Amino acid sequence: MKKYKGYLFDLDGTMYKGTELIAEARDFVVKLKEKNLPYLFVTNNSSRTPEQVAAKLRDFGIPAEGPQVFTTSQATANFLAEKKENATAYVIGEEGIQQALIEKGFTLQDENPDFVVVGIDRSISYEKLTKACLGVRNGATFVSTNGDIAIPTERGLLPGNGSLTSVVTVSTETQPIFIGKPEKIIMEQALEVIGTPRSETLMIGDNYHTDIMAGMNAGIDTLLVHTGVTTPEHLTTFEQQPTHVAHSLLEWMESI
Amino acid sequence: MKKYKGYLFDLDGTMYKGTELIAEARDFVVKLKEKNLPYLFVTNNSSRTPEQVAAKLRDFGIPAEGPQVFTTSQATANFLAEKKENATAYVIGEEGIQQALIEKGFTLQDENPDFVVVGIDRSISYEKLTKACLGVRNGATFVSTNGDIAIPTERGLLPGNGSLTSVVTVSTETQPIFIGKPEKIIMEQALEVIGTPRSETLMIGDNYHTDIMAGMNAGIDTLLVHTGVTTPEHLTTFEQQPTHVAHSLLEWMESI
Repeated sequence: MKKYKGYLFDLDGTMYKGTELIAEARDFVVKLKEKNLPYLFVTNNSSRTPEQVAAKLRDFGIPAEGPQVFTTSQATANFLAEKKENATAYVIGEEGIQQALIEKGFTLQDENPDFVVVGIDRSISYEKLTKACLGVRNGATFVSTNGDIAIPTERGLLPGNGSLTSVVTVSTETQPIFIGKPEKIIMEQALEVIGTPRSETLMIGDNYHTDIMAGMNAGIDTLLVHTGVTTPEHLTTFEQQPTHVAHSLLEWMESI
Repeated sequence: MKKYKGYLFDLDGTMYKGTELIAEARDFVVKLKEKNLPYLFVTNNSSRTPEQVAAKLRDFGIPAEGPQVFTTSQATANFLAEKKENATAYVIGEEGIQQALIEKGFTLQDENPDFVVVGIDRSISYEKLTKACLGVRNGATFVSTNGDIAIPTERGLLPGNGSLTSVVTVSTETQPIFIGKPEKIIMEQALEVIGTPRSETLMIGDNYHTDIMAGMNAGIDTLLVHTGVTTPEHLTTFEQQPTHVAHSLLEWMESI
């Protein structure tokens, strides 16, 4: 088993399932911390701030500080800042994306923004969608934090940000730039944050379509853990396979 | 010029533009009424009841009673009733679609409905979208009143029902059955309502993609009037042309 120098982790389905801890994943991260190996949680959840995500992980007993969390909101803010500094944005989204953009120096405004950004927003309204559509029709660059179609909850699969984003895509006939997994954009930035060489970094996740494809798209080795979405049966249907596969991270404890 | 025995009309762009009457269209309808020729307004607007639409037309001086208006909400209710009588539906939408379904004997309910129906809803919310997605994932038949991507207003092009519908389409990976123009479904029902033979009925509208294609899909002769969306230049780009083209309905007064 190859020993890696840096570890990128997905969250839901990899570290926990909803409100339930995946104990093997916690033990794995605890050992990484003991050995002083760098790790970073990479999440498509744009609604929470890194501090809020880290606090949730600590509640599970998983050692995590804010700087060890990298959200698609941060990746989006960085991406936009590279496109245009001190720009304006109209944002559909919750605290995580709003805060990330403000911290990066963006001015949030309703009319004639440089960028229209769509992240998950449980207070979505027709007026918000209208402003986003008018902004894009007015020439704003259209960006979406992630294309996830559904969010697993106790109630079932709820509409994900990819489905909310489609209102603007369909109405304006304009494709957004997606930032989150499986896009390369978030992964390139995550590599910079963790600071380990690409070839010695491992992306660990439970979802072939987001986590594993994100690693593949960025040329990072991948480990699919069967603790979440993608089952062993489903995995056999894909041509391009992950670098590694495990039932849980218990199998990887010795490689640290 | 062929003389037709029955006339199907689009509304916005054909009878009026927003708050502005198209006088030639009014004169045309007034003459139809004088000659006792049957006509029917066929609209993709699911938010208003037929009575409300007729009142708006009368405010413009266009002779219209409730039964001379056929909405996609009525077409949707008829279509569902043919599929299953006394069924249950979860509805996203405004007064027009809600009333049409209740009048047709449907029970509106949030959970485990037989049908999920999506019409334009300016009070759209994440909770409504959630219930629609859960309904479709639970096996409800997914129906959308119409696929219009945008609504022309003084503010610009606002999100149309086709774009709201896409949230459920994308999240559940399930295609809806669309009812409104350009679908054949609404046109076949409109023909039954007006009661004139298919070959002696004319569909008149300003929008190639909805009105004219609706006529074509139902095998009804079409007249494109250049008083709204589709310009003469744009029309030349389509392979299949309308049966007739006119700058306004003034050119057709003598054919009545």
